[in-house]
Amino acid sequence: MTETTAVSLEALRTLHAADLADRLQRLPAEEACALLRQLPPDTAGAALAEVEPENVPEMVAEMDPRRLADLLQRIAPQDAVDVLQELPPGTRRAALAALPAEVAAGVRSLQRYPEDTAGGIMSNRFIALREDMTVAQVRELLRSRAEQERTEDVAYLYVTDAGQRLVGIVSLRDLVFRRAERRMGDIMNRDVKHVGARTDQEELARQFEHYHYLGLPVLDEEGRLAGVVKASDALEVARKEATEDMQLMVGLSGEERALTPWHKSVGRRLPWLYLNLVTAFAAASVISLFENTIARWTALAVFLPIIAGQGGNAGMQTLTVIIRDLALGELSPGDGRKALLKELMLGLINGLAIGIVVGVAGYVWKGSPTLGVVAGAAMLLNQLAAALSGVMIPLGLKLLRVDPALASSIFLTTVTDVAGFFFFLGLAALALRLVPS
Amino acid sequence: MTETTAVSLEALRTLHAADLADRLQRLPAEEACALLRQLPPDTAGAALAEVEPENVPEMVAEMDPRRLADLLQRIAPQDAVDVLQELPPGTRRAALAALPAEVAAGVRSLQRYPEDTAGGIMSNRFIALREDMTVAQVRELLRSRAEQERTEDVAYLYVTDAGQRLVGIVSLRDLVFRRAERRMGDIMNRDVKHVGARTDQEELARQFEHYHYLGLPVLDEEGRLAGVVKASDALEVARKEATEDMQLMVGLSGEERALTPWHKSVGRRLPWLYLNLVTAFAAASVISLFENTIARWTALAVFLPIIAGQGGNAGMQTLTVIIRDLALGELSPGDGRKALLKELMLGLINGLAIGIVVGVAGYVWKGSPTLGVVAGAAMLLNQLAAALSGVMIPLGLKLLRVDPALASSIFLTTVTDVAGFFFFLGLAALALRLVPS
Repeated sequence: MTETTAVSLEALRTLHAADLADRLQRLPAEEACALLRQLPPDTAGAALAEVEPENVPEMVAEMDPRRLADLLQRIAPQDAVDVLQELPPGTRRAALAALPAEVAAGVRSLQRYPEDTAGGIMSNRFIALREDMTVAQVRELLRSRAEQERTEDVAYLYVTDAGQRLVGIVSLRDLVFRRAERRMGDIMNRDVKHVGARTDQEELARQFEHYHYLGLPVLDEEGRLAGVVKASDALEVARKEATEDMQLMVGLSGEERALTPWHKSVGRRLPWLYLNLVTAFAAASVISLFENTIARWTALAVFLPIIAGQGGNAGMQTLTVIIRDLALGELSPGDGRKALLKELMLGLINGLAIGIVVGVAGYVWKGSPTLGVVAGAAMLLNQLAAALSGVMIPLGLKLLRVDPALASSIFLTTVTDVAGFFFFLGLAALALRLVPS
Repeated sequence: MTETTAVSLEALRTLHAADLADRLQRLPAEEACALLRQLPPDTAGAALAEVEPENVPEMVAEMDPRRLADLLQRIAPQDAVDVLQELPPGTRRAALAALPAEVAAGVRSLQRYPEDTAGGIMSNRFIALREDMTVAQVRELLRSRAEQERTEDVAYLYVTDAGQRLVGIVSLRDLVFRRAERRMGDIMNRDVKHVGARTDQEELARQFEHYHYLGLPVLDEEGRLAGVVKASDALEVARKEATEDMQLMVGLSGEERALTPWHKSVGRRLPWLYLNLVTAFAAASVISLFENTIARWTALAVFLPIIAGQGGNAGMQTLTVIIRDLALGELSPGDGRKALLKELMLGLINGLAIGIVVGVAGYVWKGSPTLGVVAGAAMLLNQLAAALSGVMIPLGLKLLRVDPALASSIFLTTVTDVAGFFFFLGLAALALRLVPS
C-alpha cells in the first residue's frame, strides 16, 4: 500500500457514511471495490448501506463472501436486506451462508416483505417493553443497549403483551421525568397509530405527512410488532416515489438517472419510443385518410400540428394534476366525477378562448374564413377530448391496478393527436363539400 | 343550537386535527366557518393549522379578529405564520394586534423568513440548555415544560452558549440513563449538523434524506439557534416540492389541485396555453414555408407529426430525468457535459433505431424510397435535437436562476417541432429537386 493510499484511506474514514458512499460511486468500479476491501469493516459496511441500489452489484462483485457477510452484520438488518436483494442469487446465498445464524434469521424475516411496503422499509431494531416494567428498569435497559450495540435514534418505545402484540407507546420524554417506580402500563399511551407490514409506501408517506409522526410502529399479519419506520426513511422513499411518477408518465423507468450508463438507458427508453411510434402511425393514418383533402387545400397541413399540439398540452396539464393528486392521496376515486366535470368545464372555456384566437389567425393568415371556422371548432372539440382523456386515462389505469402514471402521456397524446386530426380534417372535408372554395 | 349540531360537534372534537381539517375542507365555506366558531378554541386552532393554505382565507373570512387571535395563540407559531400569510393585509393586521405581545413577537420573528426556506418551515418551540446544567436540572425543566404547554415531539435537546450560539446536542436517550449530576457540557455531542435559516427547502430535504436525521437545528444569520425542523415537516415540504416540478414542467402552478375551483384554474392554465399557441404558430410557419413542397407531395403531411412527435417524446424523457436529478441534487452543474454526451449518444442510437423503422415504413406504406430516406434521416436529426434541448433547456433555466422545470416542456416541444418540420420538409424539398419523382 503506497503512502498516498494510506493518507486517502484515513481521510475517507472520517467522512459521514452517506458522503463516503457518494465518493465511492464517483470512482471507477475497481477502485471503489478496492477501497471497500481496505476500509475498516464498520466504515465500509456503513458506506455500503448508503450506496444507490443500482451501484451495489459492481461494488461487491469481486468481494469475498466472508468479507461481505462481515460488512452486512455491522449494518441495520433492513439495509443488509436492501444490499442482498441487488445481488445475483449465487452471491446472495454465499453471503447469507457466511452470516451468523442469528443475523441471517433477522435478515430472512425482513426479506418476506416487498421493498415498497412498510415491511420493506422498517427497521427491526426497536426496543419493546412489557407493561409491568418500571421506569427505572427501562432506564437500565436503555443504558445496557446503548453500550451493547450501535442503536438507532429513537423517540418512542413500544409496549407489547405476552403475544408480542402492541398495547401502548411511551415517549422517551416521559421516561426522562417520570418517577422511577412508575410502571409502563400506567404511563403509556394506549391510542397508538400503526400500519400493517404490507402497507404500500405511498400510503405510509401519506400517514407521516398527515399526522407528523417521528416514527410509526409496523404490525405483521398476526398483529405482532414487527418493526418501526422512521420519518426520515419514509421521506427518502416518498421523494423517490413522487419523482418516479414524473418519470413513469413519459415512459422512463423509475431507476433512470441522468448519469445512468447509456447502454442501460437505451434498453429502458427505446421500447417506449417504439410503442409511441406505433401510436404515431395510428394517428398518421387518420391524416392519410384525408390526403385528398390536403392535396386540395395545403394550408390544412400547416394547422394540423397546432390543433393536435394544443390538445396535447392542455391534456398534459389535466393528466399531471390528476396523477399528482392520486399519488398524494388528495383525490379519492369517488371524486372522479367532480374532477371530470371541472376539467370538461375548463376544456370548454379554454377551447373557446383558444379556438377563437386560432380561428381569427387562420382567417387572417391564410385569408379563408372557412379555415378559421374549421380550425376554431376543431380546437374546441380537441380541448374537450383532452380534458376527458386527461381524467379518464389515470383513473382507468388505477382501476386496472397499474400505476396511474405509467406511460400515461403516450396514451394521452395518442388520443389528442387522433382526435385533433380527425376533428380538423373531417370538418375541413365537410366544409369543402358544403362551401366549395 | 340544535341537537344534531351538538352531536356532530362532539364527534368532530374527537378527530385528529388533520382529519378534522380534511372534513372542514369538504364542507361548503359557510358551514366550515360556523363549525370553526363553535368548536372549542384548542380543537378549532389545531384544525386550522392543518387546513391547506389555499382554503385558509374563506375559512376565516367572517371570523372575529379576537376569536382568530385566540385560535392562533394556541397553535405552534410557525403554523400561525402560515395561516396569517394567507390572509388579506387588513385581517392579518387585526389578528396580530389582538395577539398577546409576547406571542405576536414570536410570530413576527418567524415572518422574517420566506416560506420555502428552513426559517419558514422551522418551529421556534425548542428547548435550549446551558453547558453547566446537570442531568437532574434538565429532567426538572422537561417536567415543568410538559405541564406548562403543549410541546412538540422532541428527540434532541440543544445546548447554547451565552450568545445563544449552538455548541452541542444531547439526545433524550442520554438524559434517560446518564447520572443525575453529569453536566451537559460533558455529555453533549459537539459535532452538530445544522442549516442556515435561509437554506432552501430542497436543500433541507436533501440533508434529511442524505443523513437520516429526526430533526435539524436552524441557525440565524448571526449563528444563533433560531429553531428546529422535524423530519416529518421536511417530508411534507419535499413531497410537495417534488410534485411541483412535474406541474411546472407542463405549465401548471404548484398550487393547482384536481379539485381547485375551475374559475381559479382557468386563470392559471390559460396563459401557458396561449404561450404555447405562440410557439405552435412559430412551428407552423416552418410548415407554411414548404407549402408548395407539400402540395406536390401530400404524403409528407402524413409523416410530419410522426417526426415531430417522436422528437418530442424522446426529448421529454431526457428533460424529465435531468430535471429530476437536478431537483434531488444528484446532478451537479459540473456533470452537465457528461450528461449531454450521454444523451447525444442515446439520441444517435435511438435515432438510428427509430429512423430505420420509419424509413422502411415510409417506403412500404407510400411506395417511395425517397420518402423513406428523407423520413429516416429527419428522424435521426430530430432525435439529436431532442437530446440537445432536453439537456440544455433545464441547465439554461438553472443558469438564469429560474426553476429548471418551469414550462420546460413547452420550450422543448417548440424545439422538436420546429427542428422536426424543418429537417423533414427541408430534406424533402432538396430530394424533390435532386430526384424528381
